[in-house]
Amino acid sequence: MNGTSTARVRQALARLAEGERPEAWITLRPEAELLAEAARVDARTAAGEELPLAGQVFAVKDNIDVAGLPTTAGCPGYAYRPRSSAPAVARLTEAGAIALGKTNLDQFATGLVGTRSPYGAVRAAHDPERVSGGSSSGSAVVVALGIVDFALGTDTAGSGRVPAAFQGIVGLKPTLGLVPTEGVVPAARPFDCVTVLAPGLPAAERVAAVMAGHGPGTPSTRDWPADAPLAAPPRPRVAVPDEAGLVAMSPAWRAAFTAATQRLQAAGAELVTVDIAPFLQAAELLYGGGFAAERHAAVGEFIARGTDDLDPSVRRIVQDAGRIPAHRYAADRARLERLTHQAMALLDGCAALLLPTAPEHPTLAEVAADPIGVNNRLGTYTNFVNLMDLSAVAVPAGSVAGGPFGVTVIARAFADRVAADIAALITPAPDGSDAVTGPDTAPVAAWGPPGLPLAVFGAHLSGQPLNPQLTAYGARLAGPVRTAPRYRMAALPGSPPRPGLLRVPDGEEGRSVTGELWALPAAALGRFLAALPEPMTLGRVLLDDGRSVTGFLCESYAVLDAPDITAHGDWRSYLNRERASGANRTRTAPGHVGAVDR
Amino acid sequence: MNGTSTARVRQALARLAEGERPEAWITLRPEAELLAEAARVDARTAAGEELPLAGQVFAVKDNIDVAGLPTTAGCPGYAYRPRSSAPAVARLTEAGAIALGKTNLDQFATGLVGTRSPYGAVRAAHDPERVSGGSSSGSAVVVALGIVDFALGTDTAGSGRVPAAFQGIVGLKPTLGLVPTEGVVPAARPFDCVTVLAPGLPAAERVAAVMAGHGPGTPSTRDWPADAPLAAPPRPRVAVPDEAGLVAMSPAWRAAFTAATQRLQAAGAELVTVDIAPFLQAAELLYGGGFAAERHAAVGEFIARGTDDLDPSVRRIVQDAGRIPAHRYAADRARLERLTHQAMALLDGCAALLLPTAPEHPTLAEVAADPIGVNNRLGTYTNFVNLMDLSAVAVPAGSVAGGPFGVTVIARAFADRVAADIAALITPAPDGSDAVTGPDTAPVAAWGPPGLPLAVFGAHLSGQPLNPQLTAYGARLAGPVRTAPRYRMAALPGSPPRPGLLRVPDGEEGRSVTGELWALPAAALGRFLAALPEPMTLGRVLLDDGRSVTGFLCESYAVLDAPDITAHGDWRSYLNRERASGANRTRTAPGHVGAVDR
Repeated sequence: MNGTSTARVRQALARLAEGERPEAWITLRPEAELLAEAARVDARTAAGEELPLAGQVFAVKDNIDVAGLPTTAGCPGYAYRPRSSAPAVARLTEAGAIALGKTNLDQFATGLVGTRSPYGAVRAAHDPERVSGGSSSGSAVVVALGIVDFALGTDTAGSGRVPAAFQGIVGLKPTLGLVPTEGVVPAARPFDCVTVLAPGLPAAERVAAVMAGHGPGTPSTRDWPADAPLAAPPRPRVAVPDEAGLVAMSPAWRAAFTAATQRLQAAGAELVTVDIAPFLQAAELLYGGGFAAERHAAVGEFIARGTDDLDPSVRRIVQDAGRIPAHRYAADRARLERLTHQAMALLDGCAALLLPTAPEHPTLAEVAADPIGVNNRLGTYTNFVNLMDLSAVAVPAGSVAGGPFGVTVIARAFADRVAADIAALITPAPDGSDAVTGPDTAPVAAWGPPGLPLAVFGAHLSGQPLNPQLTAYGARLAGPVRTAPRYRMAALPGSPPRPGLLRVPDGEEGRSVTGELWALPAAALGRFLAALPEPMTLGRVLLDDGRSVTGFLCESYAVLDAPDITAHGDWRSYLNRERASGANRTRTAPGHVGAVDR
Repeated sequence: MNGTSTARVRQALARLAEGERPEAWITLRPEAELLAEAARVDARTAAGEELPLAGQVFAVKDNIDVAGLPTTAGCPGYAYRPRSSAPAVARLTEAGAIALGKTNLDQFATGLVGTRSPYGAVRAAHDPERVSGGSSSGSAVVVALGIVDFALGTDTAGSGRVPAAFQGIVGLKPTLGLVPTEGVVPAARPFDCVTVLAPGLPAAERVAAVMAGHGPGTPSTRDWPADAPLAAPPRPRVAVPDEAGLVAMSPAWRAAFTAATQRLQAAGAELVTVDIAPFLQAAELLYGGGFAAERHAAVGEFIARGTDDLDPSVRRIVQDAGRIPAHRYAADRARLERLTHQAMALLDGCAALLLPTAPEHPTLAEVAADPIGVNNRLGTYTNFVNLMDLSAVAVPAGSVAGGPFGVTVIARAFADRVAADIAALITPAPDGSDAVTGPDTAPVAAWGPPGLPLAVFGAHLSGQPLNPQLTAYGARLAGPVRTAPRYRMAALPGSPPRPGLLRVPDGEEGRSVTGELWALPAAALGRFLAALPEPMTLGRVLLDDGRSVTGFLCESYAVLDAPDITAHGDWRSYLNRERASGANRTRTAPGHVGAVDR
């Protein structure tokens, strides 16, 4: 891989030099500095270091600190030079990614249009007449133009999702607190998060996985709970809005949304129509209620001091927010809790909610004519998500009149992996791979909560009758496994029939048995164990690659009279053979696993 | 138990008739109604129903709804007649407890003194010159007078703890959201909870256990997380304030606090002195900052409409709170998060923080002279607890000048069981029992999170080398167990030495083995399993009482050459015998567990 980062930086600079959408950038790093950093990454790779993001370049929204570059938040008068990068950025550069520069945004991340910036209104990548969407306008556009491999945005009201939809790319919005927000200029602090913009889901997930987690100096972060799901269920129930929930959209956009829901259904999801009124009502609280005061708490003093660089809409929003009484904030906090409770009751039994990411794609002229009104409409389907502490991922889902159309999969807090799995049913992975790396025997390294391994060999295998016990817990299939050749397998009586695995004593002949490795949330593994019926046990199973993982074994007393089916080496082969040979077949007298030769 | 409730009600009425501290009550239920309800409870008990609180009478703070009685919140003009009881109350009456009446409080639960009520200033149970403390003034006093078995309070700033300290009783303040707050008049809504006042810890815990949990119509509740600890560690590290943290106290009160810390140390805790400045700074935010607006959001409109019944201090607090700007609320929310992070870092490695419950016990005259100042001082050690989302239990801890002195054990959110365990080291149980019922094979029914059972027979037994693997996870000892007589036990080689249990085939001779049953948080059981070394397994173990629980077994291959120690029937007996007989003893050739006779 020697030279990869350097080559990628040169390629990015060449693409940049083509000069498309120059308004997308606020600051670019000098070429010499970029090439020097690329050389360092290449040297580390050459020395054998495994850098998960080596060879990738990225852009950073200019409300996130990058050491050595000014942070403007879209306001020249606000600019400061941070001494260190935001932890989210630092983790990416440590993983080998190279920051190309800082991107334009709706000032102070206050907007969903991409036009509220003295650095210029950012035009959509595919149509210069239309807005890019915001506030992560520049980040979305430079990804869509192929200049960078991914970009960081932020998202409070929908700033990481709406511009993704308008550019036809992925906008991954993690649950609040999974990615540290230190070194990020606050917009509405309790509801702010760092997001990833990328061409496809797998790329976005790799980046999120690198950025997430506790660390020194990241008090903003929250841990994955011990029961956070590792995967969506096999046939997920997904809530979709009823007709009333879609009135904000034009007929063409509604048709595109309907097509996306049909694609999801065809991919195996079960759709459930719900009244999304509580979500839409909560959405109005972000700008229309007491929480707007968060924007004043963030930059109100700066704006009160006065500067020439303010966008008029942003100035008005922040100034008005300074006059809201605190009891209204308190009352809205209570109202939000009530609405959230109602909304979560509507999602009961559903793994996620599918919504259009935005109701329309306005032109620059439409925004100029009604900057606040259009902006508010754009947040219809996004504003409530962080207020209600949900996870979301915006993905491309077809096109309308030649422009991109996007939907968002919204899941509960810490069900980020569920949202991503369902999103993958809608949008194909552009790089050919259809999923991120699954869990290994180690805790899951990909985007999602950590899992604990469990090797299964019988009724819990995919498609077998007890497999739903795993998937109901949010377990994730890691892949097939094969034990070391040190086991015997018996067919235990009972319903459903199950195999019993016994390790043979050292020096005796055993065989390899094939099975599957699953990853379970820690709490799920505990509950699974607590419900395990005799004579099954869980212990360490030796794999043929030398690893040892938690897996199914069984008590030796139970196999004394059970048919030895070791020769089959695989439970499903055994079942198929049994089925094929029929019930009236004369069985070749099987040995017994318990009757170990000695 | 026939007649118990009726007898208890008559006894309560007789005690009530003695007329002590009549100002503690706002409404009493008619005698005929009480006796009719008692008769119904007695009938249910006689019919064989198991009612955990049969034979108990209780009082309810008058900001919590009881069907049939007015709710005044300490303000006659505010009174309304609820159609149903608060869920917390309904669960108690369903469990057989009988509500005697409603108790006086600082108006709208706004106060820690017990004097802010048109129904009269409540005097301390033991000293009529001193305040009862508040706002759960009446509830604490009627418990201390022995009229009721327990009482409900509420606690935002310390309202359930300060009056407990001044009455020499227990005030159990659960983690926010464990006990539903529906049907409770809000004080500062996000920080309100229902508390228990009782003579001793076990009684308080039984009541909390009955009230806690999700149910229909209780959106205010939160679930126990899957890793919530079930017990304090055996030698808990407990943080105590440094000298600077105690300057608010008089020398006599400081001496009493020092004595309490010494008692805790003597009981096995390790004390760690910390700078509690971040806690004390956060405490000031409850009344001194933006959060005061919560009180205006709760009753500001009512107060603005005007009524004669307002306490002047309460009116001033609520009215002033109406003028706070929302950006201050937002800024204080951010400040609270920073302080909480600092405070939690100080508690790193500690199971709890021990503080005096209050810094002084003022007289009625002192409060009258400076109603706001004295009240603010009383919240020094309590105000921050709900702001920081912590659990706490206030317990008696000796006396100062003949009056009661109390301390509070403060633990993390959902570590309520840890706080209670540590509190039990300080305060003796008044009813002679020294602990609540431990977990059974079923999830823990006592006060605390649910647990999953694990039977251990060797190195994980109490006092054995691997026992800390359980206690580090917050596991709780349920008690000794004995297997059904169907097992053999081998002494496995290795360090530390461990027994291997194998169930014998049906019809063969086995023996009972003694061990211990522990309860683990679900996530802990999963992590424990994931770290289990071969050849140990976990499966179902049959007990001699017919139950079957998750417990330690072992793979049969491993016991082939291991000494059979089944005859010992107990791992510790075997170890003792081994030790006693010394290393150079000639062992009587043991059989092998694996060599099953057949």
